[in-house]
Amino acid sequence: MTITITAFENSPDRGRGLARDMRVRWALEELGLPYEVRLLSFEALKRPEHLAHQPFGQIPSLEDGDLVLFESGAIVLHLAGTHPGLLPEDADARARAVAWLVAALNTVEPPIVECTMAMIFEREQAWFAARQPMLEKRVQARLQQLTASLGSAEWLDGAFSAGDLMMVTVLRRLVSSNLLDAWPPLLAYIARAEARPAYQRAFADQRAVFEAASCAGPEAPA
Amino acid sequence: MTITITAFENSPDRGRGLARDMRVRWALEELGLPYEVRLLSFEALKRPEHLAHQPFGQIPSLEDGDLVLFESGAIVLHLAGTHPGLLPEDADARARAVAWLVAALNTVEPPIVECTMAMIFEREQAWFAARQPMLEKRVQARLQQLTASLGSAEWLDGAFSAGDLMMVTVLRRLVSSNLLDAWPPLLAYIARAEARPAYQRAFADQRAVFEAASCAGPEAPA
Repeated sequence: MTITITAFENSPDRGRGLARDMRVRWALEELGLPYEVRLLSFEALKRPEHLAHQPFGQIPSLEDGDLVLFESGAIVLHLAGTHPGLLPEDADARARAVAWLVAALNTVEPPIVECTMAMIFEREQAWFAARQPMLEKRVQARLQQLTASLGSAEWLDGAFSAGDLMMVTVLRRLVSSNLLDAWPPLLAYIARAEARPAYQRAFADQRAVFEAASCAGPEAPA
Repeated sequence: MTITITAFENSPDRGRGLARDMRVRWALEELGLPYEVRLLSFEALKRPEHLAHQPFGQIPSLEDGDLVLFESGAIVLHLAGTHPGLLPEDADARARAVAWLVAALNTVEPPIVECTMAMIFEREQAWFAARQPMLEKRVQARLQQLTASLGSAEWLDGAFSAGDLMMVTVLRRLVSSNLLDAWPPLLAYIARAEARPAYQRAFADQRAVFEAASCAGPEAPA
Protein backbone atom coordinates (compact mmCIF):
# COMPACT_ATOMS: atom_id res chain seq x y z
CA MET A 1 0.00 0.00 0.00
CA THR A 2 1.56 3.28 -1.08
CA ILE A 3 1.73 6.17 1.35
CA THR A 4 1.25 9.55 -0.33
CA ILE A 5 1.81 12.93 1.29
CA THR A 6 1.22 16.46 0.00
CA ALA A 7 3.80 19.25 0.02
CA PHE A 8 4.25 22.76 -1.42
CA GLU A 9 5.17 22.91 -5.11
CA ASN A 10 7.05 26.14 -4.27
CA SER A 11 7.78 26.19 -0.56
CA PRO A 12 8.01 29.70 0.94
CA ASP A 13 10.95 28.46 3.03
CA ARG A 14 13.08 28.08 -0.12
CA GLY A 15 14.16 24.53 0.64
CA ARG A 16 15.30 25.07 4.24
CA GLY A 17 13.16 22.23 5.57
CA LEU A 18 10.84 24.50 7.57
CA ALA A 19 7.56 23.53 5.85
CA ARG A 20 5.53 21.02 7.81
CA ASP A 21 5.90 18.20 5.27
CA MET A 22 9.49 17.92 6.62
CA ARG A 23 8.11 16.49 9.90
CA VAL A 24 6.27 13.75 8.04
CA ARG A 25 9.12 13.04 5.59
CA TRP A 26 11.53 12.71 8.51
CA ALA A 27 9.17 10.37 10.42
CA LEU A 28 8.70 8.21 7.32
CA GLU A 29 12.48 8.00 6.87
CA GLU A 30 13.03 7.11 10.54
CA LEU A 31 10.44 4.33 10.18
CA GLY A 32 11.85 3.11 6.85
CA LEU A 33 8.56 3.62 5.00
CA PRO A 34 8.61 4.46 1.28
CA TYR A 35 6.26 7.23 0.19
CA GLU A 36 5.21 9.38 -2.72
CA VAL A 37 4.72 13.13 -2.72
CA ARG A 38 1.99 15.09 -4.47
CA LEU A 39 3.11 18.70 -4.95
CA LEU A 40 0.46 21.40 -4.71
CA SER A 41 0.45 25.03 -5.83
CA PHE A 42 -0.93 27.66 -3.44
CA GLU A 43 -3.99 27.80 -5.69
CA ALA A 44 -4.51 24.03 -5.46
CA LEU A 45 -4.52 24.23 -1.65
CA LYS A 46 -7.83 26.12 -1.82
CA ARG A 47 -9.59 23.68 -4.17
CA PRO A 48 -12.44 21.50 -2.85
CA GLU A 49 -10.56 18.27 -3.59
CA HIS A 50 -7.71 19.32 -1.28
CA LEU A 51 -10.02 20.81 1.37
CA ALA A 52 -11.77 17.41 1.50
CA HIS A 53 -8.40 16.00 2.65
CA GLN A 54 -7.13 18.99 4.64
CA PRO A 55 -9.96 21.19 6.02
CA PHE A 56 -7.65 24.17 6.63
CA GLY A 57 -6.10 24.24 3.14
CA GLN A 58 -2.62 23.47 4.42
CA ILE A 59 0.09 20.90 3.78
CA PRO A 60 0.85 18.14 4.59
CA SER A 61 -1.96 15.65 4.27
CA LEU A 62 -1.49 11.88 4.14
CA GLU A 63 -3.13 9.05 2.22
CA ASP A 64 -2.38 5.63 3.67
CA GLY A 65 -4.71 3.00 2.17
CA ASP A 66 -8.26 4.14 2.90
CA LEU A 67 -7.11 6.60 5.56
CA VAL A 68 -6.88 10.27 4.70
CA LEU A 69 -5.30 12.32 7.47
CA PHE A 70 -4.34 15.93 8.15
CA GLU A 71 -2.20 17.86 10.69
CA SER A 72 1.50 17.04 10.74
CA GLY A 73 1.32 16.21 14.46
CA ALA A 74 -1.49 13.71 13.95
CA ILE A 75 0.22 12.18 10.91
CA VAL A 76 3.44 11.66 12.86
CA LEU A 77 1.45 10.16 15.77
CA HIS A 78 -0.37 7.83 13.36
CA LEU A 79 2.83 6.66 11.67
CA ALA A 80 4.70 6.29 14.97
CA GLY A 81 1.75 4.46 16.51
CA THR A 82 1.50 1.90 13.71
CA HIS A 83 5.20 1.22 13.00
CA PRO A 84 8.05 0.63 15.47
CA GLY A 85 10.88 3.12 15.85
CA LEU A 86 9.58 6.48 17.05
CA LEU A 87 7.72 5.66 20.27
CA PRO A 88 8.91 3.55 23.23
CA GLU A 89 7.30 0.14 23.86
CA ASP A 90 6.67 0.92 27.53
CA ALA A 91 3.23 2.54 27.90
CA ASP A 92 4.30 5.26 30.36
CA ALA A 93 7.39 6.21 28.33
CA ARG A 94 5.19 6.29 25.24
CA ALA A 95 2.75 8.71 26.91
CA ARG A 96 5.66 10.96 27.90
CA ALA A 97 7.02 10.98 24.33
CA VAL A 98 3.55 12.02 23.13
CA ALA A 99 3.57 14.76 25.78
CA TRP A 100 6.77 16.21 24.28
CA LEU A 101 5.24 16.09 20.81
CA VAL A 102 2.16 17.94 22.07
CA ALA A 103 4.34 20.41 24.02
CA ALA A 104 6.24 21.16 20.80
CA LEU A 105 2.98 21.89 18.97
CA ASN A 106 0.96 23.67 21.66
CA THR A 107 3.46 25.29 24.05
CA VAL A 108 6.71 25.90 22.16
CA GLU A 109 5.59 26.49 18.57
CA PRO A 110 2.88 29.16 19.09
CA PRO A 111 5.19 31.85 20.58
CA ILE A 112 7.87 30.96 17.99
CA VAL A 113 5.40 31.34 15.11
CA GLU A 114 4.06 34.59 16.55
CA CYS A 115 7.58 36.01 16.89
CA THR A 116 8.89 34.87 13.49
CA MET A 117 5.70 35.82 11.62
CA ALA A 118 5.94 39.35 13.07
CA MET A 119 9.55 39.50 11.79
CA ILE A 120 8.27 38.77 8.29
CA PHE A 121 4.92 40.55 8.12
CA GLU A 122 5.20 43.45 10.61
CA ARG A 123 8.82 44.50 10.29
CA GLU A 124 7.87 47.72 8.46
CA GLN A 125 5.14 48.68 10.92
CA ALA A 126 5.57 51.54 13.36
CA TRP A 127 4.97 49.23 16.34
CA PHE A 128 7.45 46.51 15.39
CA ALA A 129 10.35 47.76 17.53
CA ALA A 130 8.08 48.32 20.53
CA ARG A 131 6.36 44.93 20.38
CA GLN A 132 9.15 42.59 19.33
CA PRO A 133 10.97 42.43 22.70
CA MET A 134 7.74 41.14 24.30
CA LEU A 135 7.48 38.38 21.67
CA GLU A 136 11.15 37.48 22.00
CA LYS A 137 10.82 37.32 25.78
CA ARG A 138 7.98 34.79 25.46
CA VAL A 139 10.13 32.63 23.17
CA GLN A 140 13.16 32.90 25.47
CA ALA A 141 11.05 31.77 28.44
CA ARG A 142 10.20 28.55 26.58
CA LEU A 143 13.81 28.03 25.44
CA GLN A 144 15.01 28.45 29.02
CA GLN A 145 12.51 25.89 30.32
CA LEU A 146 13.33 23.48 27.51
CA THR A 147 17.06 23.81 28.18
CA ALA A 148 16.45 23.09 31.86
CA SER A 149 14.39 19.99 30.98
CA LEU A 150 16.94 18.65 28.54
CA GLY A 151 19.78 19.10 31.03
CA SER A 152 22.77 17.12 29.85
CA ALA A 153 20.67 14.41 28.18
CA GLU A 154 20.90 13.59 24.51
CA TRP A 155 17.11 13.59 23.95
CA LEU A 156 14.11 14.85 25.92
CA ASP A 157 13.09 11.53 27.52
CA GLY A 158 15.28 8.48 26.96
CA ALA A 159 15.79 7.38 23.36
CA PHE A 160 15.10 9.63 20.34
CA SER A 161 11.32 9.72 19.80
CA ALA A 162 8.55 11.40 17.86
CA GLY A 163 8.64 14.01 20.65
CA ASP A 164 12.22 14.98 19.78
CA LEU A 165 11.43 14.91 16.06
CA MET A 166 8.60 17.39 16.54
CA MET A 167 10.49 19.61 19.01
CA VAL A 168 13.49 19.89 16.67
CA THR A 169 11.34 20.87 13.68
CA VAL A 170 9.69 23.55 15.85
CA LEU A 171 13.04 24.91 17.14
CA ARG A 172 14.45 24.99 13.60
CA ARG A 173 11.95 27.76 12.79
CA LEU A 174 14.33 29.99 14.81
CA VAL A 175 17.50 29.19 12.85
CA SER A 176 17.39 32.39 10.79
CA SER A 177 16.97 34.50 13.95
CA ASN A 178 19.56 34.86 16.72
CA LEU A 179 17.19 33.63 19.43
CA LEU A 180 18.85 30.24 19.84
CA ASP A 181 22.31 31.74 20.34
CA ALA A 182 21.85 32.02 24.10
CA TRP A 183 21.09 28.29 24.41
CA PRO A 184 24.08 26.18 23.26
CA PRO A 185 22.50 22.97 24.63
CA LEU A 186 19.54 23.48 22.28
CA LEU A 187 21.84 24.19 19.32
CA ALA A 188 23.67 20.94 20.10
CA TYR A 189 20.33 19.10 20.43
CA ILE A 190 19.24 20.36 17.00
CA ALA A 191 22.62 19.43 15.50
CA ARG A 192 22.39 15.88 16.93
CA ALA A 193 18.98 15.49 15.32
CA GLU A 194 20.10 16.94 11.98
CA ALA A 195 22.98 14.44 11.92
CA ARG A 196 20.58 11.50 11.84
CA PRO A 197 20.62 9.76 8.44
CA ALA A 198 16.81 9.80 8.28
CA TYR A 199 16.80 13.58 8.80
CA GLN A 200 19.39 14.02 6.08
CA ARG A 201 17.45 11.94 3.56
CA ALA A 202 14.23 13.85 4.32
CA PHE A 203 16.03 17.19 4.10
CA ALA A 204 17.64 16.29 0.76
CA ASP A 205 14.30 15.18 -0.68
CA GLN A 206 12.42 18.36 0.23
CA ARG A 207 15.42 20.41 -0.94
CA ALA A 208 15.29 18.68 -4.33
CA VAL A 209 11.70 19.91 -4.77
CA PHE A 210 12.84 23.50 -4.21
CA GLU A 211 15.75 23.12 -6.60
CA ALA A 212 13.59 21.59 -9.31
CA ALA A 213 11.09 24.45 -8.94
CA SER A 214 13.91 27.01 -9.12
CA CYS A 215 15.03 25.62 -12.48
CA ALA A 216 11.53 25.24 -13.84
CA GLY A 217 11.24 28.60 -15.57
CA PRO A 218 9.78 32.06 -15.22
CA GLU A 219 7.13 31.21 -12.58
CA ALA A 220 9.81 29.94 -10.21
CA PRO A 221 10.84 32.09 -7.23
CA ALA A 222 13.72 34.46 -7.94
CA MET B 1 -5.13 3.80 41.70
CA THR B 2 -6.03 7.44 42.23
CA ILE B 3 -5.69 9.90 39.37
CA THR B 4 -4.58 13.36 40.51
CA ILE B 5 -4.51 16.49 38.38
CA THR B 6 -3.27 20.00 39.11
CA ALA B 7 -5.28 23.19 38.61
CA PHE B 8 -5.05 26.89 39.49
CA GLU B 9 -5.87 27.78 43.08
CA ASN B 10 -7.12 31.14 41.72
CA SER B 11 -7.89 30.75 38.04
CA PRO B 12 -7.49 33.95 36.02
CA ASP B 13 -10.64 32.97 34.08
CA ARG B 14 -12.76 33.50 37.22
CA GLY B 15 -14.49 30.13 37.01
CA ARG B 16 -15.56 30.32 33.36
CA GLY B 17 -14.01 26.95 32.51
CA LEU B 18 -11.32 28.40 30.23
CA ALA B 19 -8.27 27.13 32.12
CA ARG B 20 -6.76 24.00 30.61
CA ASP B 21 -7.62 21.73 33.55
CA MET B 22 -11.21 21.92 32.22
CA ARG B 23 -10.16 19.75 29.23
CA VAL B 24 -8.85 17.05 31.52
CA ARG B 25 -11.73 17.27 34.02
CA TRP B 26 -14.21 16.94 31.13
CA ALA B 27 -12.36 13.94 29.65
CA LEU B 28 -12.25 12.25 33.07
CA GLU B 29 -16.00 12.80 33.49
CA GLU B 30 -16.76 11.46 29.98
CA LEU B 31 -14.72 8.35 30.80
CA GLY B 32 -16.30 7.95 34.26
CA LEU B 33 -12.94 8.11 36.08
CA PRO B 34 -12.77 9.52 39.61
CA TYR B 35 -9.94 11.94 40.30
CA GLU B 36 -8.46 14.29 42.84
CA VAL B 37 -7.29 17.84 42.28
CA ARG B 38 -4.21 19.50 43.74
CA LEU B 39 -4.64 23.29 43.63
CA LEU B 40 -1.53 25.38 43.00
CA SER B 41 -0.84 29.07 43.54
CA PHE B 42 0.98 30.99 40.79
CA GLU B 43 4.04 30.89 43.03
CA ALA B 44 3.85 27.11 43.40
CA LEU B 45 3.85 26.71 39.60
CA LYS B 46 7.45 27.95 39.52
CA ARG B 47 8.73 25.62 42.25
CA PRO B 48 11.13 22.78 41.35
CA GLU B 49 8.69 20.11 42.53
CA HIS B 50 6.05 21.31 40.05
CA LEU B 51 8.57 21.90 37.25
CA ALA B 52 9.65 18.27 37.67
CA HIS B 53 6.06 17.33 36.71
CA GLN B 54 5.34 20.16 34.25
CA PRO B 55 8.51 21.55 32.59
CA PHE B 56 6.78 24.79 31.48
CA GLY B 57 5.32 25.68 34.88
CA GLN B 58 1.74 25.38 33.69
CA ILE B 59 -1.38 23.49 34.70
CA PRO B 60 -2.67 20.83 34.31
CA SER B 61 -0.36 17.93 35.06
CA LEU B 62 -1.51 14.39 35.77
CA GLU B 63 -0.40 11.65 38.14
CA ASP B 64 -1.79 8.23 37.23
CA GLY B 65 0.00 5.50 39.16
CA ASP B 66 3.69 5.82 38.29
CA LEU B 67 3.00 8.01 35.28
CA VAL B 68 3.48 11.76 35.55
CA LEU B 69 2.26 13.59 32.47
CA PHE B 70 1.97 17.17 31.23
CA GLU B 71 0.21 19.04 28.37
CA SER B 72 -3.58 18.92 28.41
CA GLY B 73 -3.60 17.49 24.86
CA ALA B 74 -1.31 14.63 25.81
CA ILE B 75 -3.23 13.95 29.02
CA VAL B 76 -6.53 13.74 27.13
CA LEU B 77 -4.88 11.45 24.52
CA HIS B 78 -3.49 9.23 27.29
CA LEU B 79 -6.84 8.95 29.10
CA ALA B 80 -8.80 8.44 25.85
CA GLY B 81 -6.25 5.86 24.67
CA THR B 82 -6.44 3.78 27.84
CA HIS B 83 -10.20 3.92 28.59
CA PRO B 84 -13.14 3.49 26.20
CA GLY B 85 -15.47 6.37 25.37
CA LEU B 86 -13.58 9.20 23.70
CA LEU B 87 -11.96 7.55 20.68
CA PRO B 88 -13.54 5.26 18.06
CA GLU B 89 -12.64 1.56 18.00
CA ASP B 90 -11.91 1.64 14.25
CA ALA B 91 -8.24 2.51 13.69
CA ASP B 92 -8.83 4.95 10.82
CA ALA B 93 -11.65 6.77 12.63
CA ARG B 94 -9.43 6.91 15.71
CA ALA B 95 -6.60 8.54 13.72
CA ARG B 96 -9.06 11.12 12.36
CA ALA B 97 -10.35 11.94 15.85
CA VAL B 98 -6.73 12.50 16.93
CA ALA B 99 -6.27 14.74 13.87
CA TRP B 100 -9.11 16.98 15.08
CA LEU B 101 -7.58 17.12 18.56
CA VAL B 102 -4.22 18.15 17.07
CA ALA B 103 -5.94 20.64 14.72
CA ALA B 104 -7.61 22.23 17.74
CA LEU B 105 -4.25 22.62 19.49
CA ASN B 106 -1.98 23.56 16.60
CA THR B 107 -4.17 25.21 13.92
CA VAL B 108 -7.23 26.70 15.66
CA GLU B 109 -5.96 27.63 19.13
CA PRO B 110 -2.82 29.64 18.23
CA PRO B 111 -4.62 32.44 16.31
CA ILE B 112 -7.36 32.48 18.97
CA VAL B 113 -4.83 32.84 21.79
CA GLU B 114 -2.93 35.53 19.88
CA CYS B 115 -6.14 37.51 19.27
CA THR B 116 -7.59 37.17 22.77
CA MET B 117 -4.24 37.78 24.52
CA ALA B 118 -3.86 41.03 22.54
CA MET B 119 -7.35 42.04 23.71
CA ILE B 120 -6.18 41.64 27.30
CA PHE B 121 -2.56 42.79 27.25
CA GLU B 122 -2.33 45.26 24.33
CA ARG B 123 -5.70 47.00 24.44
CA GLU B 124 -4.16 50.24 25.76
CA GLN B 125 -1.33 50.26 23.23
CA ALA B 126 -1.25 52.75 20.35
CA TRP B 127 -1.13 49.93 17.80
CA PHE B 128 -4.06 47.91 19.11
CA ALA B 129 -6.70 49.31 16.75
CA ALA B 130 -4.40 48.96 13.74
CA ARG B 131 -3.33 45.38 14.45
CA GLN B 132 -6.48 43.79 15.80
CA PRO B 133 -8.36 43.44 12.47
CA MET B 134 -5.44 41.34 11.15
CA LEU B 135 -5.65 39.02 14.19
CA GLU B 136 -9.43 38.77 13.95
CA LYS B 137 -9.21 37.97 10.24
CA ARG B 138 -6.88 35.04 10.99
CA VAL B 139 -9.35 33.71 13.56
CA GLN B 140 -12.31 34.17 11.21
CA ALA B 141 -10.51 32.22 8.48
CA ARG B 142 -10.23 29.22 10.82
CA LEU B 143 -13.84 29.57 11.99
CA GLN B 144 -15.02 29.64 8.37
CA GLN B 145 -13.05 26.49 7.52
CA LEU B 146 -14.25 24.75 10.66
CA THR B 147 -17.89 25.66 9.90
CA ALA B 148 -17.48 24.26 6.38
CA SER B 149 -16.00 21.02 7.76
CA LEU B 150 -18.71 20.57 10.34
CA GLY B 151 -21.47 21.15 7.78
CA SER B 152 -24.77 19.96 9.20
CA ALA B 153 -23.16 17.21 11.30
CA GLU B 154 -23.49 17.03 15.05
CA TRP B 155 -19.77 16.39 15.67
CA LEU B 156 -16.62 16.76 13.56
CA ASP B 157 -16.23 13.11 12.52
CA GLY B 158 -18.97 10.65 13.51
CA ALA B 159 -19.60 10.25 17.24
CA PHE B 160 -18.46 12.76 19.87
CA SER B 161 -14.74 12.23 20.45
CA ALA B 162 -11.65 13.66 22.15
CA GLY B 163 -11.32 15.76 18.97
CA ASP B 164 -14.64 17.50 19.64
CA LEU B 165 -13.82 17.88 23.33
CA MET B 166 -10.58 19.68 22.51
CA MET B 167 -12.07 21.79 19.71
CA VAL B 168 -14.93 22.99 21.92
CA THR B 169 -12.59 24.02 24.75
CA VAL B 170 -10.50 25.96 22.22
CA LEU B 171 -13.57 27.70 20.67
CA ARG B 172 -14.88 28.60 24.13
CA ARG B 173 -11.89 30.95 24.54
CA LEU B 174 -13.85 33.24 22.17
CA VAL B 175 -17.09 33.34 24.17
CA SER B 176 -16.37 36.75 25.71
CA SER B 177 -15.60 38.25 22.27
CA ASN B 178 -18.12 38.64 19.45
CA LEU B 179 -16.06 36.58 17.00
CA LEU B 180 -18.32 33.53 17.10
CA ASP B 181 -21.46 35.54 16.31
CA ALA B 182 -21.01 35.15 12.55
CA TRP B 183 -20.96 31.34 12.85
CA PRO B 184 -24.26 30.03 14.27
CA PRO B 185 -23.33 26.41 13.45
CA LEU B 186 -20.29 26.72 15.74
CA LEU B 187 -22.37 28.31 18.51
CA ALA B 188 -24.78 25.38 18.22
CA TYR B 189 -21.85 22.92 18.24
CA ILE B 190 -20.49 24.47 21.44
CA ALA B 191 -23.97 24.44 23.02
CA ARG B 192 -24.42 20.72 22.17
CA ALA B 193 -21.11 19.96 23.87
CA GLU B 194 -21.90 22.09 26.92
CA ALA B 195 -25.20 20.22 27.32
CA ARG B 196 -23.38 16.93 27.89
CA PRO B 197 -23.70 15.78 31.52
CA ALA B 198 -19.95 15.14 31.73
CA TYR B 199 -19.23 18.72 30.63
CA GLN B 200 -21.66 20.07 33.21
CA ARG B 201 -20.12 18.06 36.04
CA ALA B 202 -16.60 19.20 35.05
CA PHE B 203 -17.72 22.82 34.72
CA ALA B 204 -19.45 22.78 38.13
CA ASP B 205 -16.35 21.29 39.78
CA GLN B 206 -13.92 23.88 38.41
CA ARG B 207 -16.47 26.62 39.21
CA ALA B 208 -16.62 25.45 42.81
CA VAL B 209 -12.84 26.05 43.11
CA PHE B 210 -13.31 29.65 41.98
CA GLU B 211 -16.20 30.21 44.36
CA ALA B 212 -14.33 28.74 47.32
CA ALA B 213 -11.35 31.00 46.53
CA SER B 214 -13.65 34.04 46.28
CA CYS B 215 -14.98 33.45 49.77
CA ALA B 216 -11.60 32.70 51.26
CA GLY B 217 -10.76 36.19 52.43
CA PRO B 218 -8.74 39.27 51.56
CA GLU B 219 -6.27 37.52 49.16
CA ALA B 220 -9.13 36.40 46.93
CA PRO B 221 -9.79 38.18 43.62
CA ALA B 222 -12.30 41.03 43.86
